[in-house]
Amino acid sequence: MTRKVTFYPYEVTVEVPDGENLLRAALEAGVHVNATCGGEGVCGKCRIILESGELDSRQTDLLDAQDWDSGYRLACQSRVESDVSVRIPQESLLDRRILTRHRPRVTLRSSPIDLDAVKAAGLYHPAFEKRFVRIPPPTPSNNICDLSRLEDALTHQHDLHNITLDFHLLPKLGRVLRMNDFQITTTLDFSRRRYRFPHLLNVEPGDTTRRHFAFAMDIGTTTVWVKLIDMARGEIVGRDADYNGQIKYGDDVITRIIYSEKEGGLEALQKAVAATINRLMKRVLSQYRISVDEISHITLAANTTMTHLFYGIDPRYIRLSPYTPTACSIPLARARDLGLEMPPHVFINCVSSVASYVGGDIVAGVLASGIYKDPRLTLFVDIGTNAEIVLGNEDWLACAACSAGPAFEGGGIRFGMRAVEGAIEDVRINPHTHEPMIITIEMSRPRGICGSGLINLLAALLESGLLQPNGRLRDDVETPRIRTGENGREYVLVHARDTDMGQDIVLNEADIDNLMRAKAAMFAGYVTLLDNVGLTFQDIEQVILAGGFGSTINIENAIVIGLLPDLERSRFQFVGNGSLQGATLLALSRELLAEERRVATMMTNLDLSEVPGYMNNYVAALFLPHTQMEYFPTVVERLRGNRNHAV
Amino acid sequence: MTRKVTFYPYEVTVEVPDGENLLRAALEAGVHVNATCGGEGVCGKCRIILESGELDSRQTDLLDAQDWDSGYRLACQSRVESDVSVRIPQESLLDRRILTRHRPRVTLRSSPIDLDAVKAAGLYHPAFEKRFVRIPPPTPSNNICDLSRLEDALTHQHDLHNITLDFHLLPKLGRVLRMNDFQITTTLDFSRRRYRFPHLLNVEPGDTTRRHFAFAMDIGTTTVWVKLIDMARGEIVGRDADYNGQIKYGDDVITRIIYSEKEGGLEALQKAVAATINRLMKRVLSQYRISVDEISHITLAANTTMTHLFYGIDPRYIRLSPYTPTACSIPLARARDLGLEMPPHVFINCVSSVASYVGGDIVAGVLASGIYKDPRLTLFVDIGTNAEIVLGNEDWLACAACSAGPAFEGGGIRFGMRAVEGAIEDVRINPHTHEPMIITIEMSRPRGICGSGLINLLAALLESGLLQPNGRLRDDVETPRIRTGENGREYVLVHARDTDMGQDIVLNEADIDNLMRAKAAMFAGYVTLLDNVGLTFQDIEQVILAGGFGSTINIENAIVIGLLPDLERSRFQFVGNGSLQGATLLALSRELLAEERRVATMMTNLDLSEVPGYMNNYVAALFLPHTQMEYFPTVVERLRGNRNHAV
Repeated sequence: MTRKVTFYPYEVTVEVPDGENLLRAALEAGVHVNATCGGEGVCGKCRIILESGELDSRQTDLLDAQDWDSGYRLACQSRVESDVSVRIPQESLLDRRILTRHRPRVTLRSSPIDLDAVKAAGLYHPAFEKRFVRIPPPTPSNNICDLSRLEDALTHQHDLHNITLDFHLLPKLGRVLRMNDFQITTTLDFSRRRYRFPHLLNVEPGDTTRRHFAFAMDIGTTTVWVKLIDMARGEIVGRDADYNGQIKYGDDVITRIIYSEKEGGLEALQKAVAATINRLMKRVLSQYRISVDEISHITLAANTTMTHLFYGIDPRYIRLSPYTPTACSIPLARARDLGLEMPPHVFINCVSSVASYVGGDIVAGVLASGIYKDPRLTLFVDIGTNAEIVLGNEDWLACAACSAGPAFEGGGIRFGMRAVEGAIEDVRINPHTHEPMIITIEMSRPRGICGSGLINLLAALLESGLLQPNGRLRDDVETPRIRTGENGREYVLVHARDTDMGQDIVLNEADIDNLMRAKAAMFAGYVTLLDNVGLTFQDIEQVILAGGFGSTINIENAIVIGLLPDLERSRFQFVGNGSLQGATLLALSRELLAEERRVATMMTNLDLSEVPGYMNNYVAALFLPHTQMEYFPTVVERLRGNRNHAV
Repeated sequence: MTRKVTFYPYEVTVEVPDGENLLRAALEAGVHVNATCGGEGVCGKCRIILESGELDSRQTDLLDAQDWDSGYRLACQSRVESDVSVRIPQESLLDRRILTRHRPRVTLRSSPIDLDAVKAAGLYHPAFEKRFVRIPPPTPSNNICDLSRLEDALTHQHDLHNITLDFHLLPKLGRVLRMNDFQITTTLDFSRRRYRFPHLLNVEPGDTTRRHFAFAMDIGTTTVWVKLIDMARGEIVGRDADYNGQIKYGDDVITRIIYSEKEGGLEALQKAVAATINRLMKRVLSQYRISVDEISHITLAANTTMTHLFYGIDPRYIRLSPYTPTACSIPLARARDLGLEMPPHVFINCVSSVASYVGGDIVAGVLASGIYKDPRLTLFVDIGTNAEIVLGNEDWLACAACSAGPAFEGGGIRFGMRAVEGAIEDVRINPHTHEPMIITIEMSRPRGICGSGLINLLAALLESGLLQPNGRLRDDVETPRIRTGENGREYVLVHARDTDMGQDIVLNEADIDNLMRAKAAMFAGYVTLLDNVGLTFQDIEQVILAGGFGSTINIENAIVIGLLPDLERSRFQFVGNGSLQGATLLALSRELLAEERRVATMMTNLDLSEVPGYMNNYVAALFLPHTQMEYFPTVVERLRGNRNHAV
């Protein structure tokens, strides 16, 4: 359900989802409300007056009883519960002019997997199942071994034949059978299609069919994500993320590979990521009070280098021409053999990679987004520590890796950070005062800027006229927000006193260069890939964006800075962490699992560095949004419009 | 080739294999030559005079030049190289009368696997093969992953499709491919029939197809045997055996099971046997200078309890009614996961068991002896720490375990020992003087008596009249060889001065009781099993005897004491360690490997303790050879004959 919020004195109305935070609604509306604390509710500056409608507002010490009775509320502490009218009082009003002309909402939320839709489509059909069995106890006249007895029961009660199993199951089988009078729950793996037979993973006493969990996992170069899935109900229990423990050995895949070549390096890297995973899984399990023994399996998606390192496979040939990975499809592996603190029945399914720089994370994203079975021409863009793009439809898929670097994950950006609590995720800059308005994740004190914050900041600087299309900050505008710091010219986004770490949060020109190089590499990738198949941007019917930007991405702003092509906004979709979503869907759908290898094989990799035109395309894109402005008609118009009322 | 040896003054001639030891030939001939050192050549008492023919004799200090020139030789230091005539001089002649009337040779040597016959029968077709592959190196235009490249090469060069593999192979794949210009040798496992596809186990640089080895292993309750097989040539490289390290936790399966139920007991037992195996394998590999990396797999046969303990499977239900093993067929297991010091590519194939007391060792023996495909009715008898019997032919197989105990492996016998160096393996007793003549394994100083020695000793005592059919030593015969020791009446086989440990080697009445109980349990088993299927001894066309008696067993003597049925001697065959032989054949023949589970399933187990008549049959057999002498017509005649000229 959406609600209308009208801001006075601007008389600007926006539609927002029910329950939306009022500060965020103001930002969407282009209405500048003073808020330096990122929304934490401690600065008390974002006071508004409720004129009509219902807000769910927290009462704080920053508002006395008289204020409250007069309708004063803190915007950051208010949620929209009906259509409302609010007035920005003089003291909260930095400037009477609104920030930008209001434009349609183009902020996309990452779409969590719609499990109801998955179920409706008949895709909730996990390859891992628990089955309850009643086994006739042995007698002197029928004392065949426990295992044969169990196999017979599975055959008769569940029509399962030729079951295979692992010897690790046997040590406890006799005991488990006798704990609850030969009534047990079996965990079966139907994913070993290649081997034709159901594989018996685990046995538990009694009926535990309702207690069945699994992990999906995304090992990113920077961040490791785990998601705990309730397999019995087809629901997500929870998730958690942390920095990949390998970071201390290098920020990107190349430095990690170089480190792996040192004596003991590969082992150190393997252990580091295993430690991260162990910590994460333990944390999630304990948070939701689930025993590790209730986990049936792990589905993993990761880029090719991360996959090699996690499995302890020497990755050096990934870095050396002709850039050959050792293996794109990794066989099932026992989690314990890789240092994960899991019972022996837990195996890891790893999503296949395509090539050295297009990994299983991208294949998982392609699977999650369904483009491999979609007739529409789709551009899939995954922005992580590197960026990979996929173009195609149900008939063909071409892909490429762009050497974009980790800028949009915050890497190489002085105050860049992961999309976690305290990261600035939304920014508007008042074109008249040059003052910013920020919102942080979890509305905590600002600590840095995440990917979506960087996109929004760059766009805001450009739209406010403070940033020139060549990436230089204006030196002819008189504002204390622009200064020359030790790293060159910079824009001061948050003053030290309002931050979490007592240091100004700034974006400097070196940061901007990094962001421009990243987006240029990507845009050049789109152009090169399209050229390669003889298509143009106008042929693209759908753009799917994946990446760890946070929970939202402002598509308008991403287009403004030239990170995404200037297409009709309705064609865009943001799936968040596509790798993790793909891994999750694979856990829930055996049909998808069966497709996984085929889809990886279907994806034709294009090595951009080998394509003659790529470098030209790259250089042409080193401009905001682009040197060839005809690629960005709506941006041209918009920047022109903004300039009319700005500065 | 056989040679004739004629002994004077007896004028007795025997045929012996070319190269036979002369002392052994004398013993076969029933000619008593004085030899108290077991054949070590240190007592110098077994002097003989060569009258004609060729002996290969070692010259020793115990014969001076004059003796040598006169034709004197030590029998124990001489090998028969042609037909020979030898004379026993007066001083070596304890008694002019020969020991027993000469009778046809019925000592069976354990028949090593006739690998030429295996090859001629087309059965030398190991499920594990090495294949050399030349792989086109990657180029910028074809940089698919190493693994796909290898799979393609195996498809094109060896017509292998849908290869599976283990992730443990991947860490080294890239390096191995590049060590010898993408020419490698692959080790493939074609035994995973159930999974339809060849399984890639290992890769090595260059062409190593001629270096391919495997282990066959028999884990006995008392003794662990390993055999090193040259898979590339289909030859046995060597073998070794040692006491099962679990012995310190109990002598038999029941005490081991009880120990396994203690806290940490199962783990201790698993580690103990793994340590024994590691030591043995290391010893054999180092003896033959073979690297452990050249081992492709291990084939294991063992009884059901030993199998459970080795795999760490709780064995307690084996001991509790209704005596249910946890698993009769154990899935493939990585050797390393069981504590064996092997590279990760080495897996263990375990021969299936039939029931709690008829294990994979017996199934292996049945496979090795071929009775499952033989139209003749066969009785298969395996005497180890327990005794198991199988009756049947190509159409049906029935089996049973006899609670025979370890007596014929030397267990529960004061001076019993394993069939290793220094074990007395052949004995004759002069019926006139009651003096024994002994031969030890490796002709070393006597240290104890092995299984075949016990059979021969018991028979010799019975035939010499010193032992009565009820198991009592005669107390009315005046001889210093029979005396009353601290454990009752005993026969002194070797005086302390002639032993290795300065202690008289004796057989006492308690020992005799144990041996009688063991053979009675077995004979009662034969009778019960035959009764159960409505057959009699006369229907048996073949008797196959397996067990760790040493390299030979005297069938005549085994019949004399009632351990084996009194059938035509030509029907008997001795296969030695049937379990180890079966494991060896399984390593060499994929056809046999494919039959293994079917044969185990084909064997119907009879629980003797549940059969009402068994106890009567047992009590009836507690006599030498048996209370019903009609079972033993030739023995009756023979004992009567001996008595005529004895005492």
